[in-house]
Amino acid sequence: MKLRAALIQQNSYGDHALVWARTEEAVGQAARGGAELVLLQELHMGAYFCQREDLAVFDEAEPIPGPGSERLGALAARHGIVLVGSLFERRAVGIYHNTAVVFERDGRLIGRYRKMHIPDDPGFYEKFYFTPGDLGFTPIDTSVGRLGVLVCWDQWYPEAARLMTLAGADMLLYPTAIGWDPRDAQAEQQRQREAWELIQRGHAVANGLPVLSCNRCGFEPDPADADGGIQFWGASFACGPQGELLARAGAEPAVLFADIDSGRTESVRRIWPFLRDRRIDAYADLVRRYRD
Amino acid sequence: MKLRAALIQQNSYGDHALVWARTEEAVGQAARGGAELVLLQELHMGAYFCQREDLAVFDEAEPIPGPGSERLGALAARHGIVLVGSLFERRAVGIYHNTAVVFERDGRLIGRYRKMHIPDDPGFYEKFYFTPGDLGFTPIDTSVGRLGVLVCWDQWYPEAARLMTLAGADMLLYPTAIGWDPRDAQAEQQRQREAWELIQRGHAVANGLPVLSCNRCGFEPDPADADGGIQFWGASFACGPQGELLARAGAEPAVLFADIDSGRTESVRRIWPFLRDRRIDAYADLVRRYRD
Repeated sequence: MKLRAALIQQNSYGDHALVWARTEEAVGQAARGGAELVLLQELHMGAYFCQREDLAVFDEAEPIPGPGSERLGALAARHGIVLVGSLFERRAVGIYHNTAVVFERDGRLIGRYRKMHIPDDPGFYEKFYFTPGDLGFTPIDTSVGRLGVLVCWDQWYPEAARLMTLAGADMLLYPTAIGWDPRDAQAEQQRQREAWELIQRGHAVANGLPVLSCNRCGFEPDPADADGGIQFWGASFACGPQGELLARAGAEPAVLFADIDSGRTESVRRIWPFLRDRRIDAYADLVRRYRD
Repeated sequence: MKLRAALIQQNSYGDHALVWARTEEAVGQAARGGAELVLLQELHMGAYFCQREDLAVFDEAEPIPGPGSERLGALAARHGIVLVGSLFERRAVGIYHNTAVVFERDGRLIGRYRKMHIPDDPGFYEKFYFTPGDLGFTPIDTSVGRLGVLVCWDQWYPEAARLMTLAGADMLLYPTAIGWDPRDAQAEQQRQREAWELIQRGHAVANGLPVLSCNRCGFEPDPADADGGIQFWGASFACGPQGELLARAGAEPAVLFADIDSGRTESVRRIWPFLRDRRIDAYADLVRRYRD
């Protein structure tokens, strides 16, 4: 069975209305191109706001369901596609999440995933904003398959990919926002981007399933440092169950199409039956912080 | 701190005496080139014998310590290097293992690792020969660092790499024997080789440590099928803690040198503190076969 997916890689255009207009336009383009599954980047509603810790930013969080999810649902329904978005969720006073949301072709919100692994390093102060997810690694059933939706920092964790796989995910999807510090050496930037791609393709190999990763692109200045900012590197990609690249974007905004052959998962898992041979009798220490 | 390592990628030359002579020669070359750590390929004492199930092959298994480990120990002592070899271990009547052995610079056998994940697919009938290891994922302390030695099929398991890392491994080492069926389509062969490399480089990224993988090369016919056999693809490689390639061999026999900068592990783990953020509260299902 073939499934056409599209990844919407965007700049942050600064103005919310403009961002949304571009998103609508790009999703329309994806649907006209035959995509039945559309993946947006992390926190696609605006700028990546975690470059500084700012109390006022919490005003932008919204409940789910709420205005953002309603817009996304309407967009999914308009085009009859399954749509995966990413929102700043206000769950309660003092509890906010970085949440991926999944909409069916008829616009219904049919599932959400709250980012489990939360980063914190210079320029990415996410631990300030986001409470770690408490929904676990639970895939979401849709008309295009069981989606293992994860978010950004999760992509560095083989455990997350594995748990989604063991729960029957047909593919992994990562809305993400990653870039480099333009002041870093070019060789370091290159290593970072390659590491990011290869670990995710590695998840495809380890688990024998396709992976879609949608990153933002463009430069976003650090509001607190005139010289600082993040150059989001784009390079959104899709790969098959042997990690083989199906499509990869450049550093500019793009609607990236990928044709997923879901039958390949089973044929690959037959020749490489990794799931058969896991030594579950010897994995107990995976739940320890360190084996010291 | 810099450490020069060497990977000895070889054909099976058929005759045991010849294989051993070439191994001695190659290890000498590695030592003269400044290597302090030398890694041999899986079951380097001869042909990859698992292409068929043959009772007589068990005669080749040997106790450890035994003749094979004594030879390897003497070789390590002669050159004053840490040497990682791979033997067919006879542990008891009816219990045989695929075992990696580690020797100190003075020739002492200081540790062993019994392959935990055992493959079985056409041409690789390892479940017939090898009892799954029961020593767990335990790194081995040497004068060149704490070595996370794993073997071949283990390389497809992020769990193995993670458990070695959590036990303080400074690097991962894989003696391996992998190749393709020459009758497979070229595109499939290419996908397999790339998948093999990228999942191991992915382990480096996930865990922030160097990975050394030493594969055999050359064609070995299937004794039971005149048209069959395995084309071992070589391509032994070493990468650093961001998965960046340090060295990669071609498809021919090679002594592959790689300079490991052990200081990079700490600097990489500071910028990408993945170990800090593992959601050990949510990983319990990793010890299940499937989450159904």
